[in-house]
Amino acid sequence: MSRLSSQIADSEEKVNGFIEEIVDLEAEPKILYRAARHIIDAGGKRLRPFLVLKSCRMVGGREEDALPTAAALEMLHTFTLLHDDIMDEDEKRRGVPSVHTKWGVPVAIMAGDMLFAKVYEAITKHTDAKHVKPRRILQVIKEISEATIALCEGQTRDMMFESKETVSEAEYLEMIESKTAALFEVSARCGGLLGGATKAQVKRLGMFGHYSGIAFQVIDDVLALTADEKVLKKPVGNDIREGKRTLMVVYALEKASKSQRKQILETLGNKDASPEQIRETIEVIDSLGAISYARKLAETYIKKAKKALAAFPASEDREDLISLADLIFARQH
Amino acid sequence: MSRLSSQIADSEEKVNGFIEEIVDLEAEPKILYRAARHIIDAGGKRLRPFLVLKSCRMVGGREEDALPTAAALEMLHTFTLLHDDIMDEDEKRRGVPSVHTKWGVPVAIMAGDMLFAKVYEAITKHTDAKHVKPRRILQVIKEISEATIALCEGQTRDMMFESKETVSEAEYLEMIESKTAALFEVSARCGGLLGGATKAQVKRLGMFGHYSGIAFQVIDDVLALTADEKVLKKPVGNDIREGKRTLMVVYALEKASKSQRKQILETLGNKDASPEQIRETIEVIDSLGAISYARKLAETYIKKAKKALAAFPASEDREDLISLADLIFARQH
Repeated sequence: MSRLSSQIADSEEKVNGFIEEIVDLEAEPKILYRAARHIIDAGGKRLRPFLVLKSCRMVGGREEDALPTAAALEMLHTFTLLHDDIMDEDEKRRGVPSVHTKWGVPVAIMAGDMLFAKVYEAITKHTDAKHVKPRRILQVIKEISEATIALCEGQTRDMMFESKETVSEAEYLEMIESKTAALFEVSARCGGLLGGATKAQVKRLGMFGHYSGIAFQVIDDVLALTADEKVLKKPVGNDIREGKRTLMVVYALEKASKSQRKQILETLGNKDASPEQIRETIEVIDSLGAISYARKLAETYIKKAKKALAAFPASEDREDLISLADLIFARQH
Repeated sequence: MSRLSSQIADSEEKVNGFIEEIVDLEAEPKILYRAARHIIDAGGKRLRPFLVLKSCRMVGGREEDALPTAAALEMLHTFTLLHDDIMDEDEKRRGVPSVHTKWGVPVAIMAGDMLFAKVYEAITKHTDAKHVKPRRILQVIKEISEATIALCEGQTRDMMFESKETVSEAEYLEMIESKTAALFEVSARCGGLLGGATKAQVKRLGMFGHYSGIAFQVIDDVLALTADEKVLKKPVGNDIREGKRTLMVVYALEKASKSQRKQILETLGNKDASPEQIRETIEVIDSLGAISYARKLAETYIKKAKKALAAFPASEDREDLISLADLIFARQH
């Protein structure tokens, strides 16, 4: 196991332990708590909490001061997954049925809402105000709320794109900055804030999170078209079927011939498209160079992310964050 | 206009002004912000923010210190209405189409989530930390989160009751304590906390909110069966059609003869029940004394609420809270 893998596993164990305590499977009403835990227990990479904990350590902070916020950011992420799956009508997530598929839409809405409330409960109830100044904790809460608002805005834009004639690369990037990068950015910033970082340090950590987050989403979109279905744990090409305007679709539509454009638009957002039709459309998108273009763009952002860490003194924690950025680019699922 | 009405109108104006600034109709994406404002702009009694502001004043605090939290509690309440309407498939609210009816389920989920995030943004960004100690602000955030968790639990229980064979009065009361009273309780407590109240004062304010909240829900359920449809601004008897186990249904089922029980159960949760059938079932429920029983119980809780204020020195603000309790009991919609 690489150093990074073991570090991630270590942070995952702590975060899982914390979440298992505060979202207790035996709490009543059981259906609510089990629905809230369902997707958390099904796996996930726990990258956001890792970012919180590592950022805290890198600036010399105590990991335990950041743990409630690290767990909170995983719960926040999960809450958005529960609601996204309802909105996108996705039936599977992490290899298991989505919450609304298993328990129905009302329970999935409610379990998401409850997890969102738990975000703030975790931070206010479990951050040790003897070690972290209350003003810093308030700042953390404010930034998390702002990131969530950005996330809702980004998610709404993503939905609106589905019925939009043309979407530009700039519009796509603005959308994923809100939908995905905001949460990575706030994770790194909060880790810094809780670890006692200076303003300049918090800003640089935020840039690291921001650029990593953009790369993460671009690669996520790439994998949704190219990954092995067994590894991906959900149907490949779902994004095409749902009409998502990913960077690759945006790029391919710009470069496409009239007939290629026609084929892409006929498949995009077509719920009845056959797996064959989806596969052919992905091939067209690939043949236009869209997938390699997306990978290259992601690589550029990963470089920017790493550059944001250059001003920090060399340390194992800094190396871990750099490895994390590399992992975000190189991951297979 | 009575003193109470003018006081409520005054607090409403301040709260609306605050919300209009932070949930800006011109913000992008417009669909998200307009959906978030839709039900707020359609009316509502603004009782929770009034409770926050009055409780703050009664303990000698500055109203402006409590205003962001007062507005936050109205946004929190609205967020639950948006999601409840999806879950209950209610098409109307405050005389206008519900958000999901007007813009679809995804936008209604998202607008609710955004309002919930705005709750915390409002408090952390706009509470003046020169006047209110950061620790108190953190306490306010913690209590609001806990109340929201209780609310999700109560709402889940309410849904589960619809498919439950029998529900007891004690179970009904426990459910509305979470679903409704928790938010009234936290409103009064937060007003106190932000106004510099002592622990004992905060506790008594919480009791006032708690008992008023129980009475509020019981009366709400009564009005849903008995009010003039034009005043109620939604179909009378919806609760019966949706199978809600209100106190009156619980009581009536206990007292009913075999044939009456059969009639109630045949209408309860029957989406195809005719207005005539609903009307007849309400008559049966009324003839069993259920409606007057519910009113009497609500009156008992209003008395308890007022008693919780007895230890505060007499003041105009205390009188206003007492009048508020009377209004909760006597209101027609």
